[in-house]
Amino acid sequence: MSNFQYRRLDKNDVAVLLVDHQTGLTNLVQDFSPDDFKNNVLALGDIAEYFKLPTILTTSFEDGPNGPLVPELKAQFPDAPYIARPGNINAWDNEDFVNAVKATGKKQLLIAGIVTEVCVAFPALSALEEGYEVFVVADASGTFNQTTRQAAWSRMEAAGAQLMTWFGVACELHRDWRNDVEGLGTLFSNHLPNYRCLINSYNAGKAAAAK
Amino acid sequence: MSNFQYRRLDKNDVAVLLVDHQTGLTNLVQDFSPDDFKNNVLALGDIAEYFKLPTILTTSFEDGPNGPLVPELKAQFPDAPYIARPGNINAWDNEDFVNAVKATGKKQLLIAGIVTEVCVAFPALSALEEGYEVFVVADASGTFNQTTRQAAWSRMEAAGAQLMTWFGVACELHRDWRNDVEGLGTLFSNHLPNYRCLINSYNAGKAAAAK
Amino acid sequence: MSNFQYRRLDKNDVAVLLVDHQTGLTNLVQDFSPDDFKNNVLALGDIAEYFKLPTILTTSFEDGPNGPLVPELKAQFPDAPYIARPGNINAWDNEDFVNAVKATGKKQLLIAGIVTEVCVAFPALSALEEGYEVFVVADASGTFNQTTRQAAWSRMEAAGAQLMTWFGVACELHRDWRNDVEGLGTLFSNHLPNYRCLINSYNAGKAAAAK
Amino acid sequence: MSNFQYRRLDKNDVAVLLVDHQTGLTNLVQDFSPDDFKNNVLALGDIAEYFKLPTILTTSFEDGPNGPLVPELKAQFPDAPYIARPGNINAWDNEDFVNAVKATGKKQLLIAGIVTEVCVAFPALSALEEGYEVFVVADASGTFNQTTRQAAWSRMEAAGAQLMTWFGVACELHRDWRNDVEGLGTLFSNHLPNYRCLINSYNAGKAAAAK
Amino acid sequence: MSNFQYRRLDKNDVAVLLVDHQTGLTNLVQDFSPDDFKNNVLALGDIAEYFKLPTILTTSFEDGPNGPLVPELKAQFPDAPYIARPGNINAWDNEDFVNAVKATGKKQLLIAGIVTEVCVAFPALSALEEGYEVFVVADASGTFNQTTRQAAWSRMEAAGAQLMTWFGVACELHRDWRNDVEGLGTLFSNHLPNYRCLINSYNAGKAAAAK
Amino acid sequence: MSNFQYRRLDKNDVAVLLVDHQTGLTNLVQDFSPDDFKNNVLALGDIAEYFKLPTILTTSFEDGPNGPLVPELKAQFPDAPYIARPGNINAWDNEDFVNAVKATGKKQLLIAGIVTEVCVAFPALSALEEGYEVFVVADASGTFNQTTRQAAWSRMEAAGAQLMTWFGVACELHRDWRNDVEGLGTLFSNHLPNYRCLINSYNAGKAAAAK
Amino acid sequence: MSNFQYRRLDKNDVAVLLVDHQTGLTNLVQDFSPDDFKNNVLALGDIAEYFKLPTILTTSFEDGPNGPLVPELKAQFPDAPYIARPGNINAWDNEDFVNAVKATGKKQLLIAGIVTEVCVAFPALSALEEGYEVFVVADASGTFNQTTRQAAWSRMEAAGAQLMTWFGVACELHRDWRNDVEGLGTLFSNHLPNYRCLINSYNAGKAAAAK
Amino acid sequence: MSNFQYRRLDKNDVAVLLVDHQTGLTNLVQDFSPDDFKNNVLALGDIAEYFKLPTILTTSFEDGPNGPLVPELKAQFPDAPYIARPGNINAWDNEDFVNAVKATGKKQLLIAGIVTEVCVAFPALSALEEGYEVFVVADASGTFNQTTRQAAWSRMEAAGAQLMTWFGVACELHRDWRNDVEGLGTLFSNHLPNYRCLINSYNAGKAAAAK
Repeated sequence: MSNFQYRRLDKNDVAVLLVDHQTGLTNLVQDFSPDDFKNNVLALGDIAEYFKLPTILTTSFEDGPNGPLVPELKAQFPDAPYIARPGNINAWDNEDFVNAVKATGKKQLLIAGIVTEVCVAFPALSALEEGYEVFVVADASGTFNQTTRQAAWSRMEAAGAQLMTWFGVACELHRDWRNDVEGLGTLFSNHLPNYRCLINSYNAGKAAAAK
Repeated sequence: MSNFQYRRLDKNDVAVLLVDHQTGLTNLVQDFSPDDFKNNVLALGDIAEYFKLPTILTTSFEDGPNGPLVPELKAQFPDAPYIARPGNINAWDNEDFVNAVKATGKKQLLIAGIVTEVCVAFPALSALEEGYEVFVVADASGTFNQTTRQAAWSRMEAAGAQLMTWFGVACELHRDWRNDVEGLGTLFSNHLPNYRCLINSYNAGKAAAAK
Repeated sequence: MSNFQYRRLDKNDVAVLLVDHQTGLTNLVQDFSPDDFKNNVLALGDIAEYFKLPTILTTSFEDGPNGPLVPELKAQFPDAPYIARPGNINAWDNEDFVNAVKATGKKQLLIAGIVTEVCVAFPALSALEEGYEVFVVADASGTFNQTTRQAAWSRMEAAGAQLMTWFGVACELHRDWRNDVEGLGTLFSNHLPNYRCLINSYNAGKAAAAK
Repeated sequence: MSNFQYRRLDKNDVAVLLVDHQTGLTNLVQDFSPDDFKNNVLALGDIAEYFKLPTILTTSFEDGPNGPLVPELKAQFPDAPYIARPGNINAWDNEDFVNAVKATGKKQLLIAGIVTEVCVAFPALSALEEGYEVFVVADASGTFNQTTRQAAWSRMEAAGAQLMTWFGVACELHRDWRNDVEGLGTLFSNHLPNYRCLINSYNAGKAAAAK
Repeated sequence: MSNFQYRRLDKNDVAVLLVDHQTGLTNLVQDFSPDDFKNNVLALGDIAEYFKLPTILTTSFEDGPNGPLVPELKAQFPDAPYIARPGNINAWDNEDFVNAVKATGKKQLLIAGIVTEVCVAFPALSALEEGYEVFVVADASGTFNQTTRQAAWSRMEAAGAQLMTWFGVACELHRDWRNDVEGLGTLFSNHLPNYRCLINSYNAGKAAAAK
Repeated sequence: MSNFQYRRLDKNDVAVLLVDHQTGLTNLVQDFSPDDFKNNVLALGDIAEYFKLPTILTTSFEDGPNGPLVPELKAQFPDAPYIARPGNINAWDNEDFVNAVKATGKKQLLIAGIVTEVCVAFPALSALEEGYEVFVVADASGTFNQTTRQAAWSRMEAAGAQLMTWFGVACELHRDWRNDVEGLGTLFSNHLPNYRCLINSYNAGKAAAAK
Repeated sequence: MSNFQYRRLDKNDVAVLLVDHQTGLTNLVQDFSPDDFKNNVLALGDIAEYFKLPTILTTSFEDGPNGPLVPELKAQFPDAPYIARPGNINAWDNEDFVNAVKATGKKQLLIAGIVTEVCVAFPALSALEEGYEVFVVADASGTFNQTTRQAAWSRMEAAGAQLMTWFGVACELHRDWRNDVEGLGTLFSNHLPNYRCLINSYNAGKAAAAK
Repeated sequence: MSNFQYRRLDKNDVAVLLVDHQTGLTNLVQDFSPDDFKNNVLALGDIAEYFKLPTILTTSFEDGPNGPLVPELKAQFPDAPYIARPGNINAWDNEDFVNAVKATGKKQLLIAGIVTEVCVAFPALSALEEGYEVFVVADASGTFNQTTRQAAWSRMEAAGAQLMTWFGVACELHRDWRNDVEGLGTLFSNHLPNYRCLINSYNAGKAAAAK
């Protein structure tokens, strides 16, 4: 008999780590279309905000070519711990960052960043080694090309990280639509254009019937 | 020496879970062409019917934008347990659904649904945790794009789910053509256009020779 | 100023030529998935029937490896001229075929077949030379691979053939939904799974509102 | 010597035709990712607004499964002529629509819509026949798949339509950045995520230097 | 420390199972181009012959639409055990087949066939359960499309099968070019067109220098 | 009315130009798989031989890195004019080559070679300028990647070259199967693996029926 | 009879226009891999230098987010006319640029730039209108994605521009290897890694034979 | 709780094995574009040199069609152990090679080569069996096509090899930018064209601000 244990996202036990979503580095991402990638990253930001998940921002050399943190994220989390790393490539090598993670008291970590095989994979592997449950938000993490992405995924899978995408994250955190239909529906409407269309078609139908 | 145990589909021990194959959600699926996806889902329906597998239908918010259950499935399983979930995203969080599964008395579960990383993956992981053998019918499950699908597959593979496609499911259940050549052949002819062509070519050849 | 003349499909002036949609040849088609291709060909058949377009069937060596005409088409057009060519590769080299075309009295020809660069392109070029307006139903025509298809399209475009797909053909022939909403809607519902979903969602919404 | 005449978009001589960007039809589009398509359509809307181009909206059966006009467009052009066609598939077959076009007094038409081979191609061909210069905004026009798109493009190219994408349209209309750096830059920043990143990196650099 | 054991192909301990490489079934394969697939299958045949590996042929319903065994393989292994299964879909359910495998006395099995998720995967899983070391020749195994292939690979990987391609198989069996440069070189020249070109270029250079 | 003239391959008026199919250059081709490309080139060779078309071979620097002519072609046309160009990149710049073409007395030219945008396109454009009818055998011509190929095709299309693939060439030359079923069937069987399968299935069926 | 005239690149009549190859804009290019695009652009630079073609550099807002001209090009053409346009999007709208072009006295223009549909297409169309022969170096021109590129190519093809890639340009300019084997070979070795390999293999073979 | 141990590259404990990067074999690689592959291999060479990692070169039959070692690598590591294997296909079967590895005293091995499933996978599996930590530099390893690559990756993953790409390797070795910003930045600038652009844009901005 299998002894698999379903490590399931629990909104009371999750912290979000946004690693190096900087404007320069974003210009290197080519495994997603720019529109898709922007949407995915901002969807993750909205999820963190909606579920009030403790969120930690970190950047690498933001005064250099890597560029500043994407402004939308900066604006969305004005009070979040913000660690501008002076040089550590693996965020987990930075004591302030690890302390910020520990300070959340959470044991499940949602990680996304640029580039996948470095800024995401390195802290993911470090966190796994320290016993955290690691969930990679794969579509809010970008890199140079598909081959690089596949290799990065392979390494993280082998280490026990769970690969998810932002929509699955939102659903697993929410558990039950009855907790808030309006709120989750709005989030989906804002980040899933085709779901927004379904909603609009549906509402139009209802409005017509009501006449 | 390997201690691998081949957990093989046994038609006497299988239940089929069709999760959220709803008309609105179907409009979100983009990792298959619409024709391919429709064909795969209906093929799975025909398999469940042909092998008389206990089948459970469930939907999420079918009165809203997600839309009603695909009519063909509704018509095909008029007496199947049908759980219109009031809000649980993971069908396994719904007591009625789990009870329906348990009531089948089967320990092998064939799961398909929309979208793969949520409506399929969540109950698959829950069922694995409870000791069921889980077989995902990967081509009767759809989602937003290829990247999301790959991540969903990765999470389910790591948990011990077996990834299959409808043709393999039918073959593993049937075991031996001699059990019913006509029946299985018809099922394949209806859902594999190129196999249908082989049959037609063959029959035409036989007919010609008989003249 | 442009002197372009819009040669528009006119249901009173169109004949349909279905060239070599045979079961063996279908097994060679790899520029579409089998489900997509079957759907496209049968959609074209339904269009021809729905609009009562004179339709001509022809095959090449149907008693050999090429196989018989796809049975669905044979059944759909029992009274159509049916030319089993004794050897001409270009159907237009067959006098009976050309006579059948001429007997329709139409000057617009919708052509589809297998394989695109031969069974479609050759008669298309011949018909263009004789002054017919030629419309290739590109997605009801299949061939070995994408490269071959591109070359075939290039040759036909250069000759003045108009490349269309079955959905555009139906729409251009119908002109106005008011001519028959039910009929055209049914045709689309049968051959566009995602449109069928839109219709089902819409009807469910209306039904719910009516309660 | 070539006698090619560069028919160049002139902001004083352009009207924009947005044809059937409805919520239901949008759910059929699969030749772009939903994020890309939404972005492209809204970018075109912003261009029309920014350059104050006369814009005409039209829909087909918006009370049925095709769904209402995408709300963003409706809100953006509250005073635009809005023709809810009672049944004409080709918008150009609708007298009100043609009158609205003529009333603009423009001879260059930017056309986009859903689906490309019908709602875009049909009026494009009709307008070309009447002597208009037609520019198809190819990336704000969607359809079922890549093959259908290629066929639709082929037919419109052969008729003399110019294929463009929204970025090229904006640039050709603007002609010179000095006309308004701020305005065009904002438009690009809103619809080209990677250009927005370039701007943010640049501004951060300037800010740093100013310290 | 890792306790990985490299289960390496040993030409003295390998048997080859060619499962259902039949002419009809070959017409269903679409995850390889026909040229590539033919080449890969015949390369595997040549490997089996070259290394004098005991080879077992089996077919399913070869008098029906599945068609006869590919003639080249039939001719290449006139004395090989040949099991025309009367109905078992999983070759391992056929006692004669299993007996033939056991009679070889080998514990490493190279398996290839059509279609991958059934004719290859089923006996692969059965053999793994019985303690054989299973090596799937992935490029000499074909199926309906890439998605089906990926699911089939996933199931076999999870069970412990090693995925290889024919070139790797040949190299791992040969171990050292000095065992026979001529023989292996010829095999590669026959099945790797670009390697053949390298050889021809090289020989031409040598011949020129010798003048 | 169209004044299109169908310039159709006439086996009595065709010469074949094989330009720079050399072993080194073949190693540069990446727009086809090596198996597909080899098959296509040899199929064209067999067509030239089968239809007894005057064939001209030419190479560029065959004693250097470009390598010798592919040996199969050399062997197949021992008596063909063979022009080892001393340096002209465009074969048409070589007087011997043009003289050889003129000596055939044919006005239709089938051209294939490596690489498409140079060794094929240059002589194709030159020949078009001199009034020849040029048919490019697109799948027997290879180059560095798909983008390069598309650009090369575009330039040749614009000049009036007809793009064909080897199968279409064979069919257009043969005109009628009755001219020689056996011969053409053999050619197809040798170069279309899936057609060979159709033939084998058919023959097996006939043999079975004859028992 | 065709009246096609082969407008062939003549190194004595060609000028090269490099339009907006700036570092910021390069970060927007996603229709080529960054390695491929860099290689193609630098290859074109080397061609211009090697053939001593008059070359004109121009940039758009190089002090802003678009970034400076790619340094390699700046260094390679220190004495070339360099027009930093103050705002004109179409370089041809800039009088200095057009004067620089006219000053070359050439009537054939090789154009490449970023992005294809704007910085390349606009001046290409303007130059065609003025009677220049325009050759687009398609692989040294980049843009946002494949769809945008296809539309840009379509517009330029329709206008009479010839689409080429850098390798074809070099070959058409050089005409005959005997003009300089060493020079052209070095250029190819530097920009075609696989050709470099052919040369190295060849030289190694010669060296070995000489021992 | 997970007991995953992060086996992290430690520049003091790493040796680099470059296996069969020969000019002939490079001509067989088709799973990367030639530019990408060349760049990746040379990037790995620069990493080995930059971090002063002991590097071992080995080749197979370099006097035959496989060709000599890529000259750049030969020049870069003049004093590295260089094992021209007399025939062993698996480098690990060669005693000199294994001795060279052992002589480095390192327990982490970075392996890359041509072709992936043989020259990389075989020694990787052998080294894993002997207890080494194996890191495959996946993008500096090439093979015939994507399918072969996927199978090769699968086998190595299952054995416990970690799949990385050169950029991740450099980052994991460097750990902290403060160790040497200049050096690592130069390496990235040389091998990541888009990162080079970011740097150039940044420097231009700084220079402008300094005026």
